[in-house]
Amino acid sequence: MSDRTKLRRLPDRGSQEMEAVNAILDAYFLAHVGFVVEGQPFVIPTLYGRKNGKLYLHGSAASRMMRHLETGVPACVTVTLVDGIVLARSAFHHSMNYRSAVVFGIAKKIEGEAEKNEALKIVSDNVIRGRWDEARHPHPQELKATTVLEFTIEEGSAKVRPGGPHDDEEEYAVPSWAGVLPLAVKAVEPIGDERLIPGTPVPEYVKKFKS
Amino acid sequence: MSDRTKLRRLPDRGSQEMEAVNAILDAYFLAHVGFVVEGQPFVIPTLYGRKNGKLYLHGSAASRMMRHLETGVPACVTVTLVDGIVLARSAFHHSMNYRSAVVFGIAKKIEGEAEKNEALKIVSDNVIRGRWDEARHPHPQELKATTVLEFTIEEGSAKVRPGGPHDDEEEYAVPSWAGVLPLAVKAVEPIGDERLIPGTPVPEYVKKFKS
Repeated sequence: MSDRTKLRRLPDRGSQEMEAVNAILDAYFLAHVGFVVEGQPFVIPTLYGRKNGKLYLHGSAASRMMRHLETGVPACVTVTLVDGIVLARSAFHHSMNYRSAVVFGIAKKIEGEAEKNEALKIVSDNVIRGRWDEARHPHPQELKATTVLEFTIEEGSAKVRPGGPHDDEEEYAVPSWAGVLPLAVKAVEPIGDERLIPGTPVPEYVKKFKS
Repeated sequence: MSDRTKLRRLPDRGSQEMEAVNAILDAYFLAHVGFVVEGQPFVIPTLYGRKNGKLYLHGSAASRMMRHLETGVPACVTVTLVDGIVLARSAFHHSMNYRSAVVFGIAKKIEGEAEKNEALKIVSDNVIRGRWDEARHPHPQELKATTVLEFTIEEGSAKVRPGGPHDDEEEYAVPSWAGVLPLAVKAVEPIGDERLIPGTPVPEYVKKFKS
């Protein structure tokens, strides 16, 4: 463990194990990527997919973030799932239930067409499994316009805050409601494109989507 | 507009207007904060609240992020709401519907007890309005253990991607389902603390929570 992963104030919320990190990375699809340009930090949301110790990111070849990350600058990729609001009797003991993975590493550009397609499939499958196999795959000129990055996870840390509030002992007599309001990202009814061919069925992987 | 807010590849998704930024900041409560320590970017999730051109953040006085931010280093605060997965006929035109605000600025520590409480109320009200007024307010020693930061927004940019897929004209004949799978952070049934005084009613602001 290096100094940069000593992020944790509360040791019981932390875990160095990459298993915990990977479980969080695999539970969502939106990351916030941090990089530095002339001393200024940037934090940009992006989709991702994981395979083994690598994350795959993609974007327009013209995007500022892609152009910076592909040079191999130090980067941080953070994925957070919000699981609930923890309401304690005291304001001080309010908290969030969440799972968060913070990983550090360096990205490099993937060059070959087959390798790019493979990485894009990993991202697509992580967002909505089943779609890649149905969608029309990228043309060579589309691949050329897309930067695909392989981000090698050098180290990471996971923080998980589960469960109910922890008030000071004397507060439990206070007749105020306390507990957890669970939150999750949920899908609602899919909305067909206005130019959809009439009668085209909604695929099972869309109906059964779980974030 | 400075160079650091030239983030946008697609001008029609962007808006420099702080109104658009503020609307996004006010629609959620979890930010990802970026800062740099010896060239290494860090991205850490945290709660926030906004009042006028300031964001308020809090954390343990011992937290690494708080100790760095309070020194007035350049920081980036990003808030992203995921609104849906956009399924096009072609893999290339797949997208996310989202709203994202990226703001740059510098934080400073709030020192006075009254000022700290006021800022904590702004954060609390942004997470779940109504709770601050019911909860037991911080004791002086709790306030001392809490760092509260005022982050002045120097500039920011908003990106919003709404609507359906935009395929190439020739793809519309492809008999594949296309459209949007809407996503949102939703609350489910509140879970009372195991030591709740029996019969304590769930407050209206918990029942009616909207993220």
